[in-house]
Amino acid sequence: MDKRYEQGRDLLKTIAGAHGDRLIEGLDSVAPGYSESLIAFAFGEICRRPGLELTTRELITIAALASLGSANHQLKLHVGGALRVGCTPAEIVEVLVQIGLYAGIPATLNGLAAAGEVFDEHDRGQIRR
Amino acid sequence: MDKRYEQGRDLLKTIAGAHGDRLIEGLDSVAPGYSESLIAFAFGEICRRPGLELTTRELITIAALASLGSANHQLKLHVGGALRVGCTPAEIVEVLVQIGLYAGIPATLNGLAAAGEVFDEHDRGQIRR
Amino acid sequence: MDKRYEQGRDLLKTIAGAHGDRLIEGLDSVAPGYSESLIAFAFGEICRRPGLELTTRELITIAALASLGSANHQLKLHVGGALRVGCTPAEIVEVLVQIGLYAGIPATLNGLAAAGEVFDEHDRGQIRR
Amino acid sequence: MDKRYEQGRDLLKTIAGAHGDRLIEGLDSVAPGYSESLIAFAFGEICRRPGLELTTRELITIAALASLGSANHQLKLHVGGALRVGCTPAEIVEVLVQIGLYAGIPATLNGLAAAGEVFDEHDRGQIRR
Amino acid sequence: MDKRYEQGRDLLKTIAGAHGDRLIEGLDSVAPGYSESLIAFAFGEICRRPGLELTTRELITIAALASLGSANHQLKLHVGGALRVGCTPAEIVEVLVQIGLYAGIPATLNGLAAAGEVFDEHDRGQIRR
Amino acid sequence: MDKRYEQGRDLLKTIAGAHGDRLIEGLDSVAPGYSESLIAFAFGEICRRPGLELTTRELITIAALASLGSANHQLKLHVGGALRVGCTPAEIVEVLVQIGLYAGIPATLNGLAAAGEVFDEHDRGQIRR
Repeated sequence: MDKRYEQGRDLLKTIAGAHGDRLIEGLDSVAPGYSESLIAFAFGEICRRPGLELTTRELITIAALASLGSANHQLKLHVGGALRVGCTPAEIVEVLVQIGLYAGIPATLNGLAAAGEVFDEHDRGQIRR
Repeated sequence: MDKRYEQGRDLLKTIAGAHGDRLIEGLDSVAPGYSESLIAFAFGEICRRPGLELTTRELITIAALASLGSANHQLKLHVGGALRVGCTPAEIVEVLVQIGLYAGIPATLNGLAAAGEVFDEHDRGQIRR
Repeated sequence: MDKRYEQGRDLLKTIAGAHGDRLIEGLDSVAPGYSESLIAFAFGEICRRPGLELTTRELITIAALASLGSANHQLKLHVGGALRVGCTPAEIVEVLVQIGLYAGIPATLNGLAAAGEVFDEHDRGQIRR
Repeated sequence: MDKRYEQGRDLLKTIAGAHGDRLIEGLDSVAPGYSESLIAFAFGEICRRPGLELTTRELITIAALASLGSANHQLKLHVGGALRVGCTPAEIVEVLVQIGLYAGIPATLNGLAAAGEVFDEHDRGQIRR
Repeated sequence: MDKRYEQGRDLLKTIAGAHGDRLIEGLDSVAPGYSESLIAFAFGEICRRPGLELTTRELITIAALASLGSANHQLKLHVGGALRVGCTPAEIVEVLVQIGLYAGIPATLNGLAAAGEVFDEHDRGQIRR
Repeated sequence: MDKRYEQGRDLLKTIAGAHGDRLIEGLDSVAPGYSESLIAFAFGEICRRPGLELTTRELITIAALASLGSANHQLKLHVGGALRVGCTPAEIVEVLVQIGLYAGIPATLNGLAAAGEVFDEHDRGQIRR
């Protein structure tokens, strides 16, 4: 395992907490070898590029996922991730309100519903750094 | 004309410069009355909500537009807008690189091509506050 | 609260019945202030523009939501809305069949499944003006 | 050639005028046999189902194509088709304004720009039944 | 019932097994007459065109459905169909991994989750030709 | 430069010919460092996974790109790539016809138009391995 993978694995843990391990287990049971390539590239290279704070990267990620509209599971994971790295619920809400101008109001409504569920879990202490 | 519209019109000018006037003229010639409602809502209310810096809002907007993939004209307008409100080209590039993980590599490649064109115009002094 | 909001709130009630109140409550608990702007714009201005019957607007809305494919909740709300304002189930079905040519057969199949659920509720008296 | 194809070909001519012949020629040069199946199904069966006026079907089609955002060529063809079968420019504009609530403002802006081009051609007498 | 429909119905049975009958029943209860047109066109004409093996057609179909991201039900049906006509789970997995480059990583992750569920059912003997 | 990158670069050359170099130059001028990560991951790892012939991978890629509808440039590059690695024009056409069932007829029509342009260039000897 190379350094990219190790650094990516660390960043995945920072963002996704225990969800990250379950994601990897799920992938490995269906598509052997894919999670290594993916984590090294996505979390070990792309997300670690300089030029954007990790908090801003998480908000950008939420904007992209909510705009697509078909990635509810990933959206909830990154709403939790944004909270873990230090974004506020208010910032996440503003991102979801903003993208509705471009991706349509259902993208905002469904995004806010997903975020609300994650905020509730967080209040109950289920999201921890 | 109400205050929402006036404030929206000001913000549109800040973001889009002279492109804003042309956008309004184009809309008014086809869909009378729409630009007033749209500008008051989008730029006078949504984009002026507290909780996100305007620079962050422009990066979020770029993330959404590039993820959709079918809004090249609007993407270029907001790349210019991001530069006008103080984002750096490097930040815009990182946003476009990041969203490729979620919206696919063509979204990044086409977004970077569009951004590159706007950066070139900017270097030649064609984007001014 | 301005007149746009009041008129929008009335139209939302006409289209969504009691679902409208729940939508607003849900939004207000996560994104304070957003439902006022949204309802005044979407239902108070855009949907009240002259030039299209409200029945046609609801069919157009169903066409857009089914084509997007990622707005099942909103699609069901507007299928109920179309019935409330006087569209027939047969018209709604034809809209969903037609858009499959452009948005793909899964958009039609999933749209028909959603519509069928709303028609069933309607037959059981759960949708009332 | 069966009756479905003949009726579909007639309807295509009604909607698309001379553009229909060019569409078929283009398809036949690349994908032999496809245009026969497609026209018999799309224009000979689906678009001829009872339950919706042809004018409403064209407005529905415009709503779907504008919502997708990546079908500019087809959108312009059906804006012309809507005019040919008797829809007014004002109705077409309202459809494009309405779908922006669901598919995002760029879908409306790009749709209105495409419609404006077709309206201009029509005024110059280039669209004839 | 014409020959195209009969051949389409046979191919649907080959691909979808008993799911095909349920699909038709569901459609006929909401949109009378549509399933006949659809099956004759989609399975009786398009899928029976020469030039691609049926196994390759099913892999292409999985690529399209997973890329769209909003057709989970249809994706699972065709993962089962691909297995029924002789594709291996490993081939299906590679298709889902490949399309993530273009449609984004969530398309791959959600596609693999759906495929994993179908593979599990298959192992338990629930998918039979 | 690691082995993944070298192997990726070789595969990019096989698929894209001289277009590959121009792609890299364009990326490097806007987003320094991105092309190395991308090529090593996409062409050096994902596309080189065992389990699918390269010809099938290119057909899958065409299916994904045509389904998205907003990646015309990448679609043309991979139609050329499919021809370079040994797919026939007839196979490419069938892929584009098939995906229209799921992604809508405009995806097929626009895909066939793009493919027709690449086939013409190929006939004139402009695509060479």
